[in-house]
Amino acid sequence: MQMLKDRIIRDGQVLPGNILKVDSFLNHQIDPVLMDAIGEEFARRFMNEPITRILTIESSGIAPALFAGYHLRVPVVFAKKTESANQDPDTFAAPVHSYTRNRDNVIRVACRYLSASDHILVIDDFLAHGEALLGLADLVCQAGASLAGAGIVIEKGFQDGGKRVRTSGIRVESLAIIEDMSDGHVRFQ
Amino acid sequence: MQMLKDRIIRDGQVLPGNILKVDSFLNHQIDPVLMDAIGEEFARRFMNEPITRILTIESSGIAPALFAGYHLRVPVVFAKKTESANQDPDTFAAPVHSYTRNRDNVIRVACRYLSASDHILVIDDFLAHGEALLGLADLVCQAGASLAGAGIVIEKGFQDGGKRVRTSGIRVESLAIIEDMSDGHVRFQ
Repeated sequence: MQMLKDRIIRDGQVLPGNILKVDSFLNHQIDPVLMDAIGEEFARRFMNEPITRILTIESSGIAPALFAGYHLRVPVVFAKKTESANQDPDTFAAPVHSYTRNRDNVIRVACRYLSASDHILVIDDFLAHGEALLGLADLVCQAGASLAGAGIVIEKGFQDGGKRVRTSGIRVESLAIIEDMSDGHVRFQ
Repeated sequence: MQMLKDRIIRDGQVLPGNILKVDSFLNHQIDPVLMDAIGEEFARRFMNEPITRILTIESSGIAPALFAGYHLRVPVVFAKKTESANQDPDTFAAPVHSYTRNRDNVIRVACRYLSASDHILVIDDFLAHGEALLGLADLVCQAGASLAGAGIVIEKGFQDGGKRVRTSGIRVESLAIIEDMSDGHVRFQ
């Protein structure tokens, strides 16, 4: 998706440790017009799938998922990383290791928001090691729902997540795949 | 906003302790079409203000803020409740007491996403005691920015937050104000 790649080149910052900082338009400050275009592109790529719901994870997945849901006209559910005060007692839960923070989180979704009759599109902002995506796919599996695939805004193609997830049989559509940024410059596949 | 009130009556659940559970369309599962209408309504109410940026708080404020930002064509910044791994060292921070969880959080925004030339619209999903909103207003004040006002999806009119915030001179536009729900039925002002 050229509009996204141009934005990454213009506003992304490459930091030591293969970190791509895109918090000026994706995960701290958000550009809603770009998110709308991203949501429309996800909807286009999955238009032949009878998606019933989108599943994402708080907080950075919400923006792209929400506009994909808008264009597909389906509800968006976000998995929570912390236990809510008024949370349903019945939840699907999966462990997710965070490499950036080096700790394990448990992500949860209330059982009533994922059902066996659902055909789910999972959306997230980044795919690096694949932990979050596999955790979300685990929730879909626990619910007995089917998984249409995963829509990813930025995939770090030089890390193992894309291979892990695709090898497990999940269709992955990434709007920008970074081949390399080890010298501080982003190059796409 | 009648569409929102109808949805609250249809899908909201009143729980003991004056809790209104709206996680089927607002803060766990999200209805993107409703959020678009909410965003459009916020944009309409603040159309005469030269808004430059929207400020909200993760995670539940993101959806309504994002669509307001889409309709106003301005970026959306969300304050973070936890420290990010790759966060800027320079942040504005404010303490916010959570009554639902009975604990204090510190909310943070990177200094570069709020500036003295900004005219900010603050958006949040709920207004009850006003803690989150006053915390966000504090961040705006620290940046030297001006505050256009606050857009709230659901205000609990029987709690003191609305009065506290309005008394401090902030314009508050709430799309649904609940007068009472003590008998388990929601009545609007």
